Amino acid sequence: MSKKSKQMLFNAFTQCSICHHSKGQWKNPIDGSSQGYKEIEYWVNLAKKLEEGCFDALFLADIHGTYNVYKNSREAAIRHSVQFPSNDPTLPISAMAYATKHIGFACTYSTTYFHPYQTAKLFSTLDHLTRGRVAWNIVTSYIADANENFGLGNKLMDHDQRYDRADEYMDVVYQLWEHSWEEDAIVKDIENDVHTDPSKVHEINFEGDYFNVIGPHMCEPSAQRTPVLYQAGQSSRGLTFAGRHAEGVFGMFPNIDACKKSVLSYREAAFNQGRAKDDIKIFPGVTVVVAETDQEAKDKFEEAKSYTSPEGSLALFSGWAGIDLAELDSTDNLVEMKTDAIQGLLSALVVIDPEREWSLEDVADYMAVGSLMPKIVGSASSVADELEQWIDETDCDGFNLVPVNQPSGFADFVDLVVPELQKRGRMRTRYSGSTLRENYFGNGEARLRPKHPAHSSLPEWKKNCG
Amino acid sequence: MSKKSKQMLFNAFTQCSICHHSKGQWKNPIDGSSQGYKEIEYWVNLAKKLEEGCFDALFLADIHGTYNVYKNSREAAIRHSVQFPSNDPTLPISAMAYATKHIGFACTYSTTYFHPYQTAKLFSTLDHLTRGRVAWNIVTSYIADANENFGLGNKLMDHDQRYDRADEYMDVVYQLWEHSWEEDAIVKDIENDVHTDPSKVHEINFEGDYFNVIGPHMCEPSAQRTPVLYQAGQSSRGLTFAGRHAEGVFGMFPNIDACKKSVLSYREAAFNQGRAKDDIKIFPGVTVVVAETDQEAKDKFEEAKSYTSPEGSLALFSGWAGIDLAELDSTDNLVEMKTDAIQGLLSALVVIDPEREWSLEDVADYMAVGSLMPKIVGSASSVADELEQWIDETDCDGFNLVPVNQPSGFADFVDLVVPELQKRGRMRTRYSGSTLRENYFGNGEARLRPKHPAHSSLPEWKKNCG
Repeated sequence: MSKKSKQMLFNAFTQCSICHHSKGQWKNPIDGSSQGYKEIEYWVNLAKKLEEGCFDALFLADIHGTYNVYKNSREAAIRHSVQFPSNDPTLPISAMAYATKHIGFACTYSTTYFHPYQTAKLFSTLDHLTRGRVAWNIVTSYIADANENFGLGNKLMDHDQRYDRADEYMDVVYQLWEHSWEEDAIVKDIENDVHTDPSKVHEINFEGDYFNVIGPHMCEPSAQRTPVLYQAGQSSRGLTFAGRHAEGVFGMFPNIDACKKSVLSYREAAFNQGRAKDDIKIFPGVTVVVAETDQEAKDKFEEAKSYTSPEGSLALFSGWAGIDLAELDSTDNLVEMKTDAIQGLLSALVVIDPEREWSLEDVADYMAVGSLMPKIVGSASSVADELEQWIDETDCDGFNLVPVNQPSGFADFVDLVVPELQKRGRMRTRYSGSTLRENYFGNGEARLRPKHPAHSSLPEWKKNCG
Repeated sequence: MSKKSKQMLFNAFTQCSICHHSKGQWKNPIDGSSQGYKEIEYWVNLAKKLEEGCFDALFLADIHGTYNVYKNSREAAIRHSVQFPSNDPTLPISAMAYATKHIGFACTYSTTYFHPYQTAKLFSTLDHLTRGRVAWNIVTSYIADANENFGLGNKLMDHDQRYDRADEYMDVVYQLWEHSWEEDAIVKDIENDVHTDPSKVHEINFEGDYFNVIGPHMCEPSAQRTPVLYQAGQSSRGLTFAGRHAEGVFGMFPNIDACKKSVLSYREAAFNQGRAKDDIKIFPGVTVVVAETDQEAKDKFEEAKSYTSPEGSLALFSGWAGIDLAELDSTDNLVEMKTDAIQGLLSALVVIDPEREWSLEDVADYMAVGSLMPKIVGSASSVADELEQWIDETDCDGFNLVPVNQPSGFADFVDLVVPELQKRGRMRTRYSGSTLRENYFGNGEARLRPKHPAHSSLPEWKKNCG
């Protein structure tokens, strides 16, 4: 079956921060993130290593506040460097692009804190500098604390309204990227002294409920025009948003069954928006620890667990859930708590072992390495077996690799697992296209697929052209 | 006299755009900016060349709208690529920093369109990635059109209010950069499982007329903490702002007398704010065309003038003046026009030749190459003579070099003028310090000087510490 032989796509998931999803690993002598995250050579070397392993992209998260729900304080987040400090992920990209040829770069950028006119300019610039190797992870932001850094009060906008606003935001950037500049606007007509034909560069004159933007776009068309679009909303409204806009989805799915259901619902969501089911690529997060043998991998995993900071994990979980876990007894069974937020997150754990009572200690222990990602620990062959099972049974398209240690976890994967997957015909052995969208969708597919709504989000001038 | 032997500092001034200050040069076969401005190799090669010439910094301008005053239309600006398109200047920096060791990077970033919390994060990240080689050119933005791209209506904020707001903006970023993180906050105490000491990372709890920012800053302290601060305001209010905040000033001064007066007034302005007169470095813009002999340089200059686009120059001048020059006859004498804006700009031309009537044609002709910068055309020796005269008579500190053609104009300067200036002891032959601030102020001066107001813009927690 062709489906069974589907090749795997791979993104490396991290943040310009310390021990991204594995709190406490800064104490592990093999971890370099605490010093490296701020250094340009660290990022360049990582990008080169990932390109050696034919990865599709380096995927960078970002936040704009601190996790301050746990004990109603920032202390634990600061102490254990829970995604804090966090440097700007857009800025190391040009260095990495300069030192590589093929690998793409996915950047988290918030629709809440940045204006769409600037966002459009930023991603167009990156797409030019990388020659079409950039993706945007669209987030509406979930940390209320961040709002207080941007003068927006101490509450998040209503969840559904946040998505309505984000839909309008997307219309603005689509019109700037896809419809403001015609493809042949730059003519360089020396005889008539015309560098750019003004009749082919258009205002968008966008007037919406949230944004008014006159245009034209500040940038000429880049290789991809619109960056590859990522999104990760798992709520009902978030799913609709992803179905409409996303070309890639990153998710934390606790096991194969949960992932399979989500993959189906994302494909349905795309289909319901008039797109093809495979117009959306789905990347479950996985935390892999690999070594020469299964036993060595297990030892490495246990070794890593000896460096964890449980309080850091609880600060992260409390921030995600919006509930202060410190108010519970460490042995309380969280499964019995009825709040939606906590159940949503716990579902990740509950499905793994429905019989188990999950106490705070258990949660902290499970999240200690790779937070809520499923953990795959073993030799290259064992890891490859498990990844094959995931992709064959869930119909996902690839994985967001979340290592325990950085950069060594990425390097181990490239050195050990990638050759095994390549041997099995499950991973590319060289890049074919030249843009990131081509990595994902195939050679010649540098631009958004025909049914993507960006094509039909027309500014007035284009509507009037018939 | 020690003053007479003052060494010259040099910035290369341009924009991620086409033919920055010399409209029409895209037609000149030696000009590479029309293709190169969007390519990473172009910027990396330029940075390496400038570092070969011991330049202090590459200085990148930026805008967020089109010059649409001329003929009440964007047409001329688009046709002649008048700083349009314009890519984001912050994004190529990491690539250039990766390929170099010493040269700095000054970036224009607007206080009107970007929130201070993000601006602080952006420059801290750049300062980390470059290991202390970044400067911020603070602008309040002068193109009304840009406001319509950011949903701010079609008028600029009142000029003085814009500066009041910018003063408050600076207080926010100072508190984030200088006072949110104590120097020794990162402790990496393995025994007690403390990566960062929470008692040394502080909220700023800023509540102002324009901004409310709780903090703490998202980034740990970088080599310079606060980037080197540039500003270019020449109005009375702008001068006060520069006197308070700026460590570097870039100006367009038409001749030595005008420059001398401005240098004095900047130093006075710094002194009036309690700073030392030499705490502010002043860089007049100069357009240099250099060749092996005076005659060859003159020929090259005339050759360049044959590629100009006068309409592009008038669109630029109209945008700066806020007055549609197309409404005048091409032979009208602009000197007789009484508007402040036009007189302010024309003063640049009038002082050059007080007897002359300046018609539109004359203005377009003068601005054709290097816009309002004084032009210095000749052999390396002649150029060096003239630059020596400028620095000795005006007491400026160096120059912002504005070439006619890019990147060749920069390369010519490095290949011909730099060795001549070095031979005369007027330019460094190697870098001494490692940060940009040290390039400007001397080894060991990586941080803001003691009397800079950033040190006294204290958040509550620090005030309360006595």
